[in-house]
Amino acid sequence: MLHPREGLRSSPVAGVVLTGGDVDVIAGLLTLRERQAFRLFATPRIHAVLDANSIFEVLARDIVDRRTIGLDQIVELGDGLTVELFAVPGKVPLYLEQGEAMPAIQTDDTTVAALVSDGTRRLFFVPGCAAMTTSLADRLQGADIVFFDGTLWRDDEMVRAGFGPKTGRRMGHMSLSGPDGTIEAFRRIDVRQKVIIHMNNSNPVLLADSPERAEAEAAGWIVAHDGMEISL
Amino acid sequence: MLHPREGLRSSPVAGVVLTGGDVDVIAGLLTLRERQAFRLFATPRIHAVLDANSIFEVLARDIVDRRTIGLDQIVELGDGLTVELFAVPGKVPLYLEQGEAMPAIQTDDTTVAALVSDGTRRLFFVPGCAAMTTSLADRLQGADIVFFDGTLWRDDEMVRAGFGPKTGRRMGHMSLSGPDGTIEAFRRIDVRQKVIIHMNNSNPVLLADSPERAEAEAAGWIVAHDGMEISL
Repeated sequence: MLHPREGLRSSPVAGVVLTGGDVDVIAGLLTLRERQAFRLFATPRIHAVLDANSIFEVLARDIVDRRTIGLDQIVELGDGLTVELFAVPGKVPLYLEQGEAMPAIQTDDTTVAALVSDGTRRLFFVPGCAAMTTSLADRLQGADIVFFDGTLWRDDEMVRAGFGPKTGRRMGHMSLSGPDGTIEAFRRIDVRQKVIIHMNNSNPVLLADSPERAEAEAAGWIVAHDGMEISL
Repeated sequence: MLHPREGLRSSPVAGVVLTGGDVDVIAGLLTLRERQAFRLFATPRIHAVLDANSIFEVLARDIVDRRTIGLDQIVELGDGLTVELFAVPGKVPLYLEQGEAMPAIQTDDTTVAALVSDGTRRLFFVPGCAAMTTSLADRLQGADIVFFDGTLWRDDEMVRAGFGPKTGRRMGHMSLSGPDGTIEAFRRIDVRQKVIIHMNNSNPVLLADSPERAEAEAAGWIVAHDGMEISL
């Protein structure tokens, strides 16, 4: 993937697919090397967030190809890979909320997940999800690997720890534990590898010796870590 | 500086003083802990950049105190420290440029430096500077420490390395070497400690065994590095 003409400053990043407009999704764009050519895939709603923030003009439009893709549209990434963005239950980013009311959970292009495939194997990346629905479960069924929202262990974890008034539901995240939680939901979905991502630092699953980690691992989950490599 | 009521998530960062609106100055704000209370000092022009980019609303206005300070105004930071922002020669951030013409070098609130003092000792932070003027030299005279713009070693270094068409002058940075360079300029300014900061990765002064590093050190300069600690 290295470009010979740009050998001194080349990067293996040929494309970026955005699954949201939240700070933790888009701020990393600002740390990419300046004047690096790549393709930037996102929905119209997410591109609009970038367009409205002039700081992202550091991704110069003459070399960074901003491509709009619709939901449920299969897009060629190169090297035989495709990506498809699809809606999952979620809510708007906190910093874009208008007013104080609790926004309803919605399944539209507000919160999206990605399916990457080489035509045979299927990788799902679901960094935020407010609830497991039947249609989402059907879609994930039989996947080779699923990276899934593991923000909180329990819905009121941040409130109990004194971190603030926000519950998981308020932030648009289902929790790992509990009857409506992620671990329970995936007991009825057949997935070869399951990886917990997007953990808040209040989540006890982060601690290698916690009972919550043991419970997640016993249910077949891997907790993601920096430098992790995956084989499919 | 730890706040007992926020012990679990406390941070020693009580305040941030911005010296510019460029991505490398302001993007770090997005990595501060969410819901962390601090004071954010900047000129009206820099605050306007933040105001125009909704992504910075992640610094919730009910807990992050955005304070506007004018140039040449001495502001109390607490713990007996004051800060004063002042103009140095510079140009507007590349991503805010309108059109293709080379913007003139200007000494206004476009590019600012900071003087931090405890009433006795003086620390200067000058991350960008397009030229050494007599008034700037006079101001720095006798300082205990100066952190100074070391973007490039020579003006056409990026062009020669094939990194692109931009010279140091085009980016608003004076170079370390040469008759109009930083090292030469500081030979006529009496400063106790001089630290090179803001190096571009094309700058050979970054290499511990380069002749350029030897030349800078022979002239009394220290090259900044991650984790560096300073005693005054």
